[in-house]
Amino acid sequence: MKGLRYGGLECGGTKMVMAVCDEKGTVLDTATIPTQAPDETLEHIVAYFKERDVQTLGVGAFGPVDLNFASPTFGNILNTPKLAWQNVPLLKTLKEGAGVPVVLDTDVNAALYGEVVLGGAKGIDHAAYITVGTGIGIGLWLNGRLYHGSLHSEGGHMRIARFPGDTFEGNCPFHKDCLEGMAAGPALLKRYNVEKPEEIWKQEGSMDLESHYIAEAITDLTMLLSLQRVILGGGVCDTPGLVERIREMTAEKLGDYLPRPDKNQMDQFILPAALYPNQGIVGAAVLGRDFSTI
Amino acid sequence: MKGLRYGGLECGGTKMVMAVCDEKGTVLDTATIPTQAPDETLEHIVAYFKERDVQTLGVGAFGPVDLNFASPTFGNILNTPKLAWQNVPLLKTLKEGAGVPVVLDTDVNAALYGEVVLGGAKGIDHAAYITVGTGIGIGLWLNGRLYHGSLHSEGGHMRIARFPGDTFEGNCPFHKDCLEGMAAGPALLKRYNVEKPEEIWKQEGSMDLESHYIAEAITDLTMLLSLQRVILGGGVCDTPGLVERIREMTAEKLGDYLPRPDKNQMDQFILPAALYPNQGIVGAAVLGRDFSTI
Repeated sequence: MKGLRYGGLECGGTKMVMAVCDEKGTVLDTATIPTQAPDETLEHIVAYFKERDVQTLGVGAFGPVDLNFASPTFGNILNTPKLAWQNVPLLKTLKEGAGVPVVLDTDVNAALYGEVVLGGAKGIDHAAYITVGTGIGIGLWLNGRLYHGSLHSEGGHMRIARFPGDTFEGNCPFHKDCLEGMAAGPALLKRYNVEKPEEIWKQEGSMDLESHYIAEAITDLTMLLSLQRVILGGGVCDTPGLVERIREMTAEKLGDYLPRPDKNQMDQFILPAALYPNQGIVGAAVLGRDFSTI
Repeated sequence: MKGLRYGGLECGGTKMVMAVCDEKGTVLDTATIPTQAPDETLEHIVAYFKERDVQTLGVGAFGPVDLNFASPTFGNILNTPKLAWQNVPLLKTLKEGAGVPVVLDTDVNAALYGEVVLGGAKGIDHAAYITVGTGIGIGLWLNGRLYHGSLHSEGGHMRIARFPGDTFEGNCPFHKDCLEGMAAGPALLKRYNVEKPEEIWKQEGSMDLESHYIAEAITDLTMLLSLQRVILGGGVCDTPGLVERIREMTAEKLGDYLPRPDKNQMDQFILPAALYPNQGIVGAAVLGRDFSTI
């Protein structure tokens, strides 16, 4: 590998995806390891990036993670259900281990940033990234900046109107029937009593039900934040027809109220991630490239 | 009146409230006129402020209003149901008439700014202002700035989970059962088939119902935007016990998930407008004071 290299790490609860990108964000090399005990997992990650001589390391991490510069626990994983990872000083360990500048953000913000720099949200000032998989995450790009608020968005736990006739109680351990509790992968498997994701879409009405929940969230975000674009990531990108149905339902729910988005051009408002399935690692790599300080 | 004076205008669909404040935001003089034909109404407003020799004029306007500097219709009222006011060049007319710098924002953003500068959101970086009256409006203060997005927030039209057992169809002409269609003043009057606002609270369960809808909205905003404070304006501030019930319900709905806000300190998270009922005009006046350019 010649030229400058930038490391990207997608730090998930079940696996760690590492990648090395060139200065344009092209993936040169990638590797995946399972997320096990923090010490050995982080040691493995550090070794990977040291060997590949990266200039910077960008990290998109599962949450909650402390992103407040002024906080004494800045860069630490916070109160996660993955108990071994609670209070792990992720940023510090990676920085000291790899010996390069490390930039840390949430997994959804990293993916969103990848889409803003190289994907479907280029040139956009106000966008959201919604990923639907084992959980639901929402990242916000507002006024041309990644938004964090006092901690970071936990938009997957927004409350949401039920799909007509849906009596599933919801499976979020904190809120039962919040967005994630109704519409993330595990909620769909449990609701339809099936084991494999592909079986979900064979269930009558499942496409409409799932599209409803995601369209409700998109409608709320659009009303509240006057967005110009919404990028969808995670498993939804892989389900034929789902993005199209979400566009139709969002147009219905917006109901001719806002001057924008144009309901006849929803295919320019709601887009699947252009970098799919690499938006997370590429986004992390360009985050490190663009925001690292010595 | 001695010292510098700053004009504030709360430009509503039914009335125009004008005020002159001193440099500290203290109201020195105020007047209200009904909102009639644009020409005569604006002429009256211009005369009021010219007579009082204000340095600047800040305006909080009913929407939708074009706040995009780069737009050819910047400063105009857009597609309002008040047909005579459609396309009225509000900013231009006031600026030329009064001969002073004019700063324009939405009515909710003006009120929010008043609370940020002089009221209950002082020193806060991420806050929302929610007003419940004849409509529901939401203003956002994110990263220490008023947020607009591509137009401005229309958060009152967010979709929201129904109060258990509530079968009211909703009365938003665009969305039926959006937040405003379920929980603004007219929706409550229609649902309970009463004519006066004070009769609403005599209806069984009305406090719980209304608190539910507002708490749902606060919960969504808090999850999504990781807010530090929520300010409530409009009629809700005047209803004994309503803010307290909203706090309780929001704490329940947040459900021990976020590290902040502290559910035992909801009285520091959700506050009635400290400047009530003057947050709109005082906010407009300080908006003009702080953001005007020659």
